[in-house]
Amino acid sequence: MTEQTATTGAGGPTTGATARGEQTRQLILDTAMRLFRERGYARTTMRAIAQEAGVAVGNAYYYFDSKEHLIQGFYADTQHEHRAAAASVLARERDFAARLAGVLHAGVDVLTPYHSFAASFFKTAAEPTSPTSPFSSESAGPREASVALFREVLEGSTTRVDPELRPALPELLWLAYMGVVLYWVHDRSPDQVKTRQLIDNAAPLVDRLVGLSRLRVLRPVTRQVLALIRTLRH
Amino acid sequence: MTEQTATTGAGGPTTGATARGEQTRQLILDTAMRLFRERGYARTTMRAIAQEAGVAVGNAYYYFDSKEHLIQGFYADTQHEHRAAAASVLARERDFAARLAGVLHAGVDVLTPYHSFAASFFKTAAEPTSPTSPFSSESAGPREASVALFREVLEGSTTRVDPELRPALPELLWLAYMGVVLYWVHDRSPDQVKTRQLIDNAAPLVDRLVGLSRLRVLRPVTRQVLALIRTLRH
Repeated sequence: MTEQTATTGAGGPTTGATARGEQTRQLILDTAMRLFRERGYARTTMRAIAQEAGVAVGNAYYYFDSKEHLIQGFYADTQHEHRAAAASVLARERDFAARLAGVLHAGVDVLTPYHSFAASFFKTAAEPTSPTSPFSSESAGPREASVALFREVLEGSTTRVDPELRPALPELLWLAYMGVVLYWVHDRSPDQVKTRQLIDNAAPLVDRLVGLSRLRVLRPVTRQVLALIRTLRH
Repeated sequence: MTEQTATTGAGGPTTGATARGEQTRQLILDTAMRLFRERGYARTTMRAIAQEAGVAVGNAYYYFDSKEHLIQGFYADTQHEHRAAAASVLARERDFAARLAGVLHAGVDVLTPYHSFAASFFKTAAEPTSPTSPFSSESAGPREASVALFREVLEGSTTRVDPELRPALPELLWLAYMGVVLYWVHDRSPDQVKTRQLIDNAAPLVDRLVGLSRLRVLRPVTRQVLALIRTLRH
């Protein structure tokens, strides 16, 4: 939870206030995540978070309208961290499978400290109508930033893709990432090593499928898959 | 909840006792399902179920060790009903896509009266470590019976399949069915019409993929998919 846009430095009154505001926001968010881990999401109140962070309850509500907004803050911060953690593999690798595996591993790296929280929080986020679902309209900001990261995986790679598939592919890769995260949430192997194996097995498979999408015989399949996914949106 | 092996008729004392036992079991199960729908799964106790069914609490526990066993009973009964509802399409159709669509629609037909219960129960069953998860060892009986139904979909059809894929395919079809059920649980369209569209779109796609599995160029993909699924098992 450390990767933040640096707004400190110049030190004019406005900038200083922004930096202090950012510090307070971060303090509240870090405290909330700690209490969610320790006490569970459902049993942690905004009042307890404010008290534990040493800020007035009204001040906490100034930064986060509700517990759900704290989760959105968590999503936004981990998304920033994910991008930072993925930067070196994206700068280094041109091979699509290597870029995809690198970005998936970076995502799991960033989430790892939250594994016990994720297992208990899953029931809340798995409900598609919850604002804390990764698919909700409230989560659109971090979701779109995450889809953009998978667009970089594709666009910086040397792979060639069926032109009908190309525009839809970043979102499909993000969906696959959500599948990896779902698997990771329930992964009870030591250090979630099974999730790491899943990534190492899935990335070359996705790479192969993306390459095959250019075969004439498979074009209709691609079209059918894309139509099915359009059906799936509620 | 009506399709039961007929044990009535002859009327000897043992058979009569069995039939009465079956009636009591069914009464308890139907009452439980009604209370789960009305009050929610978490808030319904075995005591309340027994009271509402007009049987002694000890008698209820004689038939079902716990609420989780009631859910297993529900799974077993709906699986029986699913098989009965699928019988005519399996007897009539030889085309793989038609058989698959028919069996998936039959499954949704049987579950439809439980849609509101399913939405509230989802959080409990979605936890992979819960004995009420369709993937749990406790659910092995109904799950294997359901996989056998999808084996019939395949074996009674005229489709030809890559021999490496064939033994794994019934379970993959069952997994796809679980995907359909998951979608249906959260489907808020009128009469869950979106789920029906999903089935009608997915069955021809699966049919096409199964047919393509015999292409030489796709054999390695099949092998990779099967290896990935083995990795996925925790």
